[in-house]
Amino acid sequence: MLKLDSLDQQLLLPGTKGLALRHALPQHAIAAQQWNMLNGDTSFPVAVLKDSALQHNLHWMKHFCESMNVVLAPHGKTTMCPQLFDMQLENGAWGMTLATVNQTLIAHRFGVRRVLLANQLVSASDTQAILALMHDDPEFEFFALTDSLDGVKRLATQVRDAGLTRPMNLLVELGFPGGRTGCRTQAEAIAVARAIHASPYLRLAGIEGYEGLLVSKHREQDLVAVREYIASLIHLCKIADTEQLFESEHILLSAGGSAYFDLVGRGFEQELKLSRPVTAILRSGCYVTHDHGFYHALVNEMQTRESHVKAENLKPALEVWSMVQSRPEPDLAILTMGKRDASYDIDLPFPVWQHRPGSKHAPQTLPAGCKIEKMNDQHAYLRLPAGCELSQTLRVGDIVGCGISHPCTTFDKWPLILVVDDDYQVKSAVNTFF
Amino acid sequence: MLKLDSLDQQLLLPGTKGLALRHALPQHAIAAQQWNMLNGDTSFPVAVLKDSALQHNLHWMKHFCESMNVVLAPHGKTTMCPQLFDMQLENGAWGMTLATVNQTLIAHRFGVRRVLLANQLVSASDTQAILALMHDDPEFEFFALTDSLDGVKRLATQVRDAGLTRPMNLLVELGFPGGRTGCRTQAEAIAVARAIHASPYLRLAGIEGYEGLLVSKHREQDLVAVREYIASLIHLCKIADTEQLFESEHILLSAGGSAYFDLVGRGFEQELKLSRPVTAILRSGCYVTHDHGFYHALVNEMQTRESHVKAENLKPALEVWSMVQSRPEPDLAILTMGKRDASYDIDLPFPVWQHRPGSKHAPQTLPAGCKIEKMNDQHAYLRLPAGCELSQTLRVGDIVGCGISHPCTTFDKWPLILVVDDDYQVKSAVNTFF
Repeated sequence: MLKLDSLDQQLLLPGTKGLALRHALPQHAIAAQQWNMLNGDTSFPVAVLKDSALQHNLHWMKHFCESMNVVLAPHGKTTMCPQLFDMQLENGAWGMTLATVNQTLIAHRFGVRRVLLANQLVSASDTQAILALMHDDPEFEFFALTDSLDGVKRLATQVRDAGLTRPMNLLVELGFPGGRTGCRTQAEAIAVARAIHASPYLRLAGIEGYEGLLVSKHREQDLVAVREYIASLIHLCKIADTEQLFESEHILLSAGGSAYFDLVGRGFEQELKLSRPVTAILRSGCYVTHDHGFYHALVNEMQTRESHVKAENLKPALEVWSMVQSRPEPDLAILTMGKRDASYDIDLPFPVWQHRPGSKHAPQTLPAGCKIEKMNDQHAYLRLPAGCELSQTLRVGDIVGCGISHPCTTFDKWPLILVVDDDYQVKSAVNTFF
Repeated sequence: MLKLDSLDQQLLLPGTKGLALRHALPQHAIAAQQWNMLNGDTSFPVAVLKDSALQHNLHWMKHFCESMNVVLAPHGKTTMCPQLFDMQLENGAWGMTLATVNQTLIAHRFGVRRVLLANQLVSASDTQAILALMHDDPEFEFFALTDSLDGVKRLATQVRDAGLTRPMNLLVELGFPGGRTGCRTQAEAIAVARAIHASPYLRLAGIEGYEGLLVSKHREQDLVAVREYIASLIHLCKIADTEQLFESEHILLSAGGSAYFDLVGRGFEQELKLSRPVTAILRSGCYVTHDHGFYHALVNEMQTRESHVKAENLKPALEVWSMVQSRPEPDLAILTMGKRDASYDIDLPFPVWQHRPGSKHAPQTLPAGCKIEKMNDQHAYLRLPAGCELSQTLRVGDIVGCGISHPCTTFDKWPLILVVDDDYQVKSAVNTFF
């Protein structure tokens, strides 16, 4: 992606979050600064990506997909980071999944040439923007979802009005009662598939679902529900094929968030014996950085289901470090990090390490019981366990490293994220576009 | 602020959230596009600022502060929007409050010349950056907080090592047990004040506190606690003055978030009879856009305390509009809006209006009982009341306008926000820097 060069050429200005810049600096010059986060060379809070963990996860998922005979269209909404998109595509991704047309325009600007929009195309301006991309860039392949006859009719009219260049590729979305989008029954879904087939402006390219919402406190029931749901997607696919509704070269069969992608892969593994070749597509977005919380727990459960996951698992790559700015009470430290800096939607950040900038020691692991108990917009409350030695030794100016839970809502807080080696030496930076 | 021109000159690219751009557009050309949000000329979701409400709030607060004989240093972290900073300063603000040094650098770049950092200066690089600004720009006035002897010592060393140009202005922060930062007792606070006075590198400029955390379910108790806390700030101020510790021309006395600024104003009104003139500074950040939730409720309570607030109150200026993308069940609409687009930390967004793009009617107020019951990263679940007519009439492609609760966590999701008139005609755009 030559267009990534434009990001390296851009001037970073003083005030850029995570950097301690006094003058403008071209992004490509970051490596030459020899910054080390542990020396206090960044500003705090700072978000860092551990390069070794990132590379591990990229290779891990490539191997995982190959072993299951599925492809990956990683959900780009997680990171909205062109440099990570590039790494994902370099590691064999089939294309990128995205959530909105504006995200698609950004990905295309940075060289992404195949997009699965995991949503409906609704507004006329969105449809026009996609048709313009398809017109101007004959290499650009685009797929969107639909879940209603109204939606099909609406979209067919928009495509017709915009002037047909290529038909719009659609996947029928099958949902489930109480879920999000998606047809609630096989009958509704097959009716939508027929309507797409009947329109000269639209082309039925596959079947899609999202099992990631089936997360409750009763995991055994969740697993049964996920397997049944995956089976229902396959069933729909077979019916649509029997009716010869598919019009694309390959039939796309897609599901798979970041929680149960092994179950989806296993579900899609079976020989479907359809009239056309099938491309089974997973869409995990969070695997690339993984986390210390929600996905850590869910992917750990995969170890009980897949022996090769047990042998080697995803590693958390995204950390947010902040500085102790006040020690107002013996068991309380106030950190320079808040809701603007780290996820707070599933869990508050997990404090993992402590370090005194300038010290020659490696960061110390925090004792069990340390907890971020609250965050305001720009502050976090680190509670220390009663009687812990740290309550004597943790000082203003020390830095604290946190893992996060749910990468999506941390990425969207950082226009620029530093890539570091295992010693927190800053190697480069990546950009996000939210 | 001439430097705001640079924002008007910048090229907005396709993919900019809220806009439906097919080609790059200079920001100043937005007005000439004649976009109307109700016609579907923007993309959805889109965040809009209602200009009339914004202007009303700016004037309202100017009048409020004048009537209480206090000044305003609005907290810029709420919006991080240079155009709004400019409007606030044009409407008489004494300066801007900010939360981090990087925020301060951004504000200074866009012309802000007086900053109250409502936090400690901790890292050496932060202190160096501020001293460099003070050196390079003799007009720049800067004030920060401190709450510990360790902090004073640390900062004095940093200022000395960086080469003294002007002494660093500090306010002693008084907190309260169970609170955030700030000395826990008068004795600690006066010791910090003495230490500042004793350092040639530091200058004691005032006393600061933040009462905004005293929000519980027992409002009567909260009000008592706020009044007592404000009295304790004044008490500290008097002691420090008696000891002749203040070294600035004016003694700054500052408190006041967006919840109880009337109580702070009333508390500060009394004649303090100190040895130097006193400047009483409120710091509300949220007043400028107000909201439909948390601050709406709190400021409504002011009506029982202040008759002129009853006569005319702040108006919510910030709305997020999204499109119905799926109607999968009779009482459920899935909107193109999620955690990336609107606050979810205090309340989920409040659905207020519904509109069909292209319709000549004004937006319809949604019936009572409509509720956003959940948000994912990119989706909201709008639940319709059982048996409501809307369950028959609300269609894919309709747009829904939501009020938000807590402006800070909506602003940080929008690099660009459209300014609209009362008919949702797009007049201009403002930018945020997070």
